[in-house]
Amino acid sequence: MEIERKYLLSTLPPAELLGPGVEIQQGYVDAGDPEIRVRRLGAHFFLTIKSGDGVRRQEYEVRIPRPTFDKLWPLTQGARLEKTRYTVQDGDDRWEIDAFAGPLEGLYLAEIELPSDFRPVRAPAFLTVVREVTSEPAYKNKSLATRGQPSA
Amino acid sequence: MEIERKYLLSTLPPAELLGPGVEIQQGYVDAGDPEIRVRRLGAHFFLTIKSGDGVRRQEYEVRIPRPTFDKLWPLTQGARLEKTRYTVQDGDDRWEIDAFAGPLEGLYLAEIELPSDFRPVRAPAFLTVVREVTSEPAYKNKSLATRGQPSA
Repeated sequence: MEIERKYLLSTLPPAELLGPGVEIQQGYVDAGDPEIRVRRLGAHFFLTIKSGDGVRRQEYEVRIPRPTFDKLWPLTQGARLEKTRYTVQDGDDRWEIDAFAGPLEGLYLAEIELPSDFRPVRAPAFLTVVREVTSEPAYKNKSLATRGQPSA
Repeated sequence: MEIERKYLLSTLPPAELLGPGVEIQQGYVDAGDPEIRVRRLGAHFFLTIKSGDGVRRQEYEVRIPRPTFDKLWPLTQGARLEKTRYTVQDGDDRWEIDAFAGPLEGLYLAEIELPSDFRPVRAPAFLTVVREVTSEPAYKNKSLATRGQPSA
């Protein structure tokens, strides 16, 4: 089991740290339970179904061909987001930094996955952390896609 | 692991054996791999994803709410079928008998699932078996939905 921690950033780290990044488009055919999500990750397409909650949470993901993505995408209207994901290695830590686009432009989030044997996280100096938002529902991708930019 | 055997019937067994049956509508958002199927079974709605082949075949099914079914259903145009499923118990054997509707009207199939320790199947007298079609691709649901009535 992994623990995810998420941080709101005020700016993107310097370009030379970030590398090229990968474009992500994702949308929800259903943002309820089960959640039905389609996603483009660069040139790859995925369908993901998540159901249940907490320890009963189940996730199933399959690669889909582009025509199937194109068929499903129109069903996600009003529940979409776009971002570029950068991966930055900091010692043993692998940070994922998302720079949102479209209506969410100007929003930057950094995420790290930790093994369940908890240890303190130290955000590296290159991250301009505003605050930790791990437990704020407004910063979940699904909420960002359906409700837009958080007011804070 | 279960073995399925499927038989083509010339007629439906007498109504008094069949009971009420349940209406099934199913359609394929994608009839390829992964296969993405939506299904109405009476008042219940399901999304099923099947991927891979043979022993690597994976199947994932979730209940979905009706509005999600209604959203996905239009994507199945040209790859749908409708049938009424009757379940008939014959000793230890549980037969599922499908009476197809729409363009497939007049087609009747009986299916039985057997445990993997193979034993011979004896079709009960109330089944008017034309022949076994277990290994005929034309009688798979996906093929019936996309290609219609088999010519034989």
